[in-house]
Amino acid sequence: MGYVEKVRLLDYWKIQDTALQSEFPRSRLVLMVDRRLLVTNGPTVKLVEHKFADLRQKLGDYGLQFDMSNSCLLDAVEEDEEANLIPLFGTSIDAADPPEDSPISKKDVLKKLGDSLGGRFTDVRMAMLTIGEERQRNLLAKFQSLTKWAAVYRRCPKCAAALKMRTSKSGAECVTCQRVYYPTFSPVSITLITDPTNEHALLVRHRGSAGGVFTAVAGFAHSGESMAECARREIAEEVGIEVESIRSLNMSQPWPMPDSSLMVAHHAVAKMDQKISVCPDELETAQWFSREQVRQALDTTLADPFLKKLPRTLDDRQTLHYIPPVGAIAHQMISQWLNGKMERSSL
Amino acid sequence: MGYVEKVRLLDYWKIQDTALQSEFPRSRLVLMVDRRLLVTNGPTVKLVEHKFADLRQKLGDYGLQFDMSNSCLLDAVEEDEEANLIPLFGTSIDAADPPEDSPISKKDVLKKLGDSLGGRFTDVRMAMLTIGEERQRNLLAKFQSLTKWAAVYRRCPKCAAALKMRTSKSGAECVTCQRVYYPTFSPVSITLITDPTNEHALLVRHRGSAGGVFTAVAGFAHSGESMAECARREIAEEVGIEVESIRSLNMSQPWPMPDSSLMVAHHAVAKMDQKISVCPDELETAQWFSREQVRQALDTTLADPFLKKLPRTLDDRQTLHYIPPVGAIAHQMISQWLNGKMERSSL
Repeated sequence: MGYVEKVRLLDYWKIQDTALQSEFPRSRLVLMVDRRLLVTNGPTVKLVEHKFADLRQKLGDYGLQFDMSNSCLLDAVEEDEEANLIPLFGTSIDAADPPEDSPISKKDVLKKLGDSLGGRFTDVRMAMLTIGEERQRNLLAKFQSLTKWAAVYRRCPKCAAALKMRTSKSGAECVTCQRVYYPTFSPVSITLITDPTNEHALLVRHRGSAGGVFTAVAGFAHSGESMAECARREIAEEVGIEVESIRSLNMSQPWPMPDSSLMVAHHAVAKMDQKISVCPDELETAQWFSREQVRQALDTTLADPFLKKLPRTLDDRQTLHYIPPVGAIAHQMISQWLNGKMERSSL
Repeated sequence: MGYVEKVRLLDYWKIQDTALQSEFPRSRLVLMVDRRLLVTNGPTVKLVEHKFADLRQKLGDYGLQFDMSNSCLLDAVEEDEEANLIPLFGTSIDAADPPEDSPISKKDVLKKLGDSLGGRFTDVRMAMLTIGEERQRNLLAKFQSLTKWAAVYRRCPKCAAALKMRTSKSGAECVTCQRVYYPTFSPVSITLITDPTNEHALLVRHRGSAGGVFTAVAGFAHSGESMAECARREIAEEVGIEVESIRSLNMSQPWPMPDSSLMVAHHAVAKMDQKISVCPDELETAQWFSREQVRQALDTTLADPFLKKLPRTLDDRQTLHYIPPVGAIAHQMISQWLNGKMERSSL
């Protein structure tokens, strides 16, 4: 089946509850338990997929169940031996806490469950940052976004009546006023700022982020803004400088945390003699770095992709040691800049 | 006051209800009555701004009132003589119907009200399509988006308790669970598809659109998609073909109808020998046109910017006569392509 047919089948499954429900028993599934994602062991991080019957049995061994209510439609994938397409679902369940007098902790139970399912459970943010394949990251972004959205959109914001959620979790209709709501996510501009000589980049440290990690400036678009206006405003709000030119790069990434967004990459040029004044609610610091400093941070990050050797002392936490890992669009933007692939803005 | 200070002041007004309320009596305002926008007369379409006291008096002459509850914050603008910044609000009110036995129709009343306010009332879509300045279009997009959003988001989608709307209409907080909701709008890919020789473009006619108007393929991004994936999927869904390469252009536009969106421009290349199969729910037709055919439609559109001579017969309605007017990003994309500014994708 070709790409066009696949896209149209997915579109059909999204809105036809009965058709999708009848596919559920032959679907494949990826799993979150207690909001932690099942991924492969080893250095190459991937989602672990299970066949429906296999997952039902292995979870059943631990007294856990799933059904369509806690599952969302992620994709249409080929069945093992045949060319038929079947749904790929993301299912998110909660594990009951063990009794207080239990000799086994919940953490141990999840460790064993992970072993039985051929993987381990990890934090969703860490998974987004370390999964190598774009398609898999985007499936995880969809899984996390739809799961969170479906947990919130239970009542009509206009009339407070119940919302009837689609099986796919791609929309919900008010049972009273018939208004349809779709999963909400917002465009975000993420901008690598360089100086006019293109030899320096301005990177920032977010409040509460891992020690020593610096990244590009990002922020949600507001109603009525173009992406370029969004980038210009966010840079002014967050670091207090004006940029001379803004150019969109050919890169974007869905990102589900803390709120669902679609990050769109930009490059801006700013003079280095402007006084930086960071927005203290969001940022700890913003600083200009040379190519050499940034390249060293890239090398450190690639050598320690799971950020296990993050600096602990306060001073060191505020020094550039790392950039975001490979899964983040900021990593790709910074790498491209270092590799000379991001030519100066032509605006 | 510089750009950085202005941006930070707007950010402050957005969340500080009391501060913004105290600015209201010295604000400036743009106006919708019965969902129609007040714009200037004459060939150059602009928003009409009024001082608070002036608008209050002139509306009062017609028995109409406004207050902060039906106003949203659009921008910070300079006061006439001073460098002080004051808020620019958009206010949207409903006019009561005249009594049944009234000799004057509502349409006539609005005509007179428009005269008194130095303009005329027009459909928001037509205003978006014909306002020449990007800043003014984006202000209108914000006005329309925030007004519609604030009318819907009255109750918490999670717990159904009342939402407390900010004075600026930039957010609303649940009085019970404290969850904060922000105006929703979605990224949309809009893609000009050309053939590998770059001499032909694929344009589409939407169901229910004005007769003889053809445009680029567009559609809402779904959760978990990059913009390029969105463009690829929408093209498959709507016209049934696969594209070889997709490149983002340096152009985007907020668009508030029918739902609020942020349109991001792309260019894709597709072979012309693929069978086109349009999605009948959305499109009437999709066809390849030569540069010459598209240039002629651009000329017709520029010569009749208000689309007053649209074809009426069924056959003629399905023939390429017009492209969208200057206010639409599709117009800019098609113009750039005709002017050779959209070089072939390098992907």
